[in-house]
Amino acid sequence: MARVLASEIPHHVGEQVSLLGFLHWKRDLGGIQFALVRDRSGIVQVVVEKGVDLPLAESSIRVTGKVVENAKAPGGYEVLANGIEVVSAALEPSPIEIPKEEWRVNPETLLEYRYVSLRGEKARAALQVQAALVRGFRNYLDAQGFTEIYTPKIVSAGAEGGSNLFGIDYFEKRAYLAQSPQLYKQIMVGVYERVYEVAPVFRAEEHATSRHLNEYLSLDVEMGFIQDEFEVIDLEENLLRAMLEEARHTTPKQLAMLEVEWPNTQEMPRLSHAEARRILREELSMPVGQDFNEEAERALGAYAKEKWGVDFLFVTKYPQVARPFYAYPEGNGVTRGFDLLFRGLEITSGGQRVHQYEVLIEQLRNKGNDPANFAGYLEVFKYGMPPHGGFAIGAERLTQKLLGLPNVRYARAFPRDRHRLTP
Amino acid sequence: MARVLASEIPHHVGEQVSLLGFLHWKRDLGGIQFALVRDRSGIVQVVVEKGVDLPLAESSIRVTGKVVENAKAPGGYEVLANGIEVVSAALEPSPIEIPKEEWRVNPETLLEYRYVSLRGEKARAALQVQAALVRGFRNYLDAQGFTEIYTPKIVSAGAEGGSNLFGIDYFEKRAYLAQSPQLYKQIMVGVYERVYEVAPVFRAEEHATSRHLNEYLSLDVEMGFIQDEFEVIDLEENLLRAMLEEARHTTPKQLAMLEVEWPNTQEMPRLSHAEARRILREELSMPVGQDFNEEAERALGAYAKEKWGVDFLFVTKYPQVARPFYAYPEGNGVTRGFDLLFRGLEITSGGQRVHQYEVLIEQLRNKGNDPANFAGYLEVFKYGMPPHGGFAIGAERLTQKLLGLPNVRYARAFPRDRHRLTP
Repeated sequence: MARVLASEIPHHVGEQVSLLGFLHWKRDLGGIQFALVRDRSGIVQVVVEKGVDLPLAESSIRVTGKVVENAKAPGGYEVLANGIEVVSAALEPSPIEIPKEEWRVNPETLLEYRYVSLRGEKARAALQVQAALVRGFRNYLDAQGFTEIYTPKIVSAGAEGGSNLFGIDYFEKRAYLAQSPQLYKQIMVGVYERVYEVAPVFRAEEHATSRHLNEYLSLDVEMGFIQDEFEVIDLEENLLRAMLEEARHTTPKQLAMLEVEWPNTQEMPRLSHAEARRILREELSMPVGQDFNEEAERALGAYAKEKWGVDFLFVTKYPQVARPFYAYPEGNGVTRGFDLLFRGLEITSGGQRVHQYEVLIEQLRNKGNDPANFAGYLEVFKYGMPPHGGFAIGAERLTQKLLGLPNVRYARAFPRDRHRLTP
Repeated sequence: MARVLASEIPHHVGEQVSLLGFLHWKRDLGGIQFALVRDRSGIVQVVVEKGVDLPLAESSIRVTGKVVENAKAPGGYEVLANGIEVVSAALEPSPIEIPKEEWRVNPETLLEYRYVSLRGEKARAALQVQAALVRGFRNYLDAQGFTEIYTPKIVSAGAEGGSNLFGIDYFEKRAYLAQSPQLYKQIMVGVYERVYEVAPVFRAEEHATSRHLNEYLSLDVEMGFIQDEFEVIDLEENLLRAMLEEARHTTPKQLAMLEVEWPNTQEMPRLSHAEARRILREELSMPVGQDFNEEAERALGAYAKEKWGVDFLFVTKYPQVARPFYAYPEGNGVTRGFDLLFRGLEITSGGQRVHQYEVLIEQLRNKGNDPANFAGYLEVFKYGMPPHGGFAIGAERLTQKLLGLPNVRYARAFPRDRHRLTP
């Protein structure tokens, strides 16, 4: 008998069906047994006769039985089993109770047993929403004439100087893990004008906080022949709307299960860094420097929500001291760099980049870098690079804030931090 | 005046337009000058009056002028320029002549100057076809109920024991670059049943041949609740057809420019490894071992083309000695592992995997591995892992053989090999 998925059960009332999945949960009421079977599409309640031996939870099983309506069953249907076959038996009880998905408690336990805790309905919903956001990212950019690129993660030098790099033994040489595809995506602007990449990036940050990962998924965009950074910001606004729409259309059940409070995607105000500093200082009485720390970002997010009812806030015109050498300088110590805060968390850094060879050399020197260390990168700027800019969205941070997850680690299947290399 | 793309020129005959792009080529005929302007959509011929100073080739320029038909111009149209503005001047002549794209000569030079040689029409067409193949991969699998996953590239141990691993300094610990997402995609079968990943993998192979890369794009698939490996092979057949169709529909100009000989996608025969060995030995008089080397694969590819007119050939039932510990053993030293040869080059390894904990332990020991080194991986097999299998397609090899590129390096933007870490 052909397999029927959990989500297809409502179309088979009165029929004999065959289900394949994991034994999510079971309960023996003496006269009768209840089980929940979980497959890739959802969960079905199964009624099993007294005396039938059910294997340990998480075993793979095949259930044959008749579909009936039952208003009390999850989803309104259940299967009256007349056959249970163990496809692959669990050998031990799961180290965590998967149906009791209390991921606000005990994060280290959940991560330690990630290979089974991911089977929980909420854990898997979160990563499916993330996949939908990424799909929306690609689809929107494909339609706008962007080309997907795949740039090297093994590099000979860092994109922003030498800090936070993981070293690699590359045969006789020293190499590093790419912190960002920055330099490569800029080169590719000279090839395709508009490019994007979806790939892991690696940062050897020492601190293990609820917002940092040492390996994360970076959604990178770069575009040429722009007027200024506001063209890039316009693109990112529309891109984010498209990504969120893709999630809403393709993962509605997941979003409902996670009780997501949908963000305001209509308005994404743009605040200059100077104005943001003034608000922090004068209206929020907070100490403020040339770059914003976590607290300042949170405060700005709360302010924007309270005052304008918005979840996304662009902070533009970053000071040069807080930006890397490739940020386009506008004079007076200000760049065309911007950040995007989502619910008070930085999820994007971006901006217009320097496209003039001489300016790059000068900026490298100003930042204390030896241009010789950037020789490979600098070369391309001798060959007519147009004005260009772009940004990167941290996929896990976007997912975390959209879904209200307490820790960015839950927005990654197998997070890496200072202390965690497994599973 | 709004920008018009090269591809839109035919719709603007008789109109004044503004083009933005790179000065691809120029020639001064004394009384008149010709130029080709290249943008992301193609190339347009521009006629420039005598005496107008054109910048160096590869400069970014804006051309304003009137569109006219001209049967002799590339594409049948040209722009009579009345304004040339240099957006960003090239400072030096390009180290290679981009319009003379002779990528069968001087591969090292082309790779050395990859940051500009990629601007060539054929180089950029090749990587756009690749992006289309990858898009086809994702779209097909999304439609089949697969979930995209993003697994760690920083790992604590190799998927296949300790060989060919790049070591990383991970804070106080030793870590490695993932050779494959194998173990993680198997874990994720327990979560989503059907998963795929598009991500770089890293192999510290010592030899630098025309078919090896030390970093490449792996298109990984894994699916649960299968009967046997032929269900996986059936999926891969249909997947490849969908990928090739996506390329044909979305990059027809690129395929025409590269004069691609379209492969036979109708038939993809399946030959057992034993039968393949017999053919090599008896019909082709070649020495043959338990695994096939490059020459054997080429010979089998040629044989299949000659005898059956096919480009894709599955070799099934690989011997256990030639497969990793996780290959499903069928008895008699044979596994449910398969390879896919495309025009005589292995582009896929795949098969059914072991899903039983005890069998994995035994197989690890048989291969001389200490199961303790695979503790994190082994754990999940205690929790009802269903029968499953999958495969990985090397994106660059598929691209290389589809397009007839002489070296797999041209199927990657910035290839990495034993000697090449830049650009």
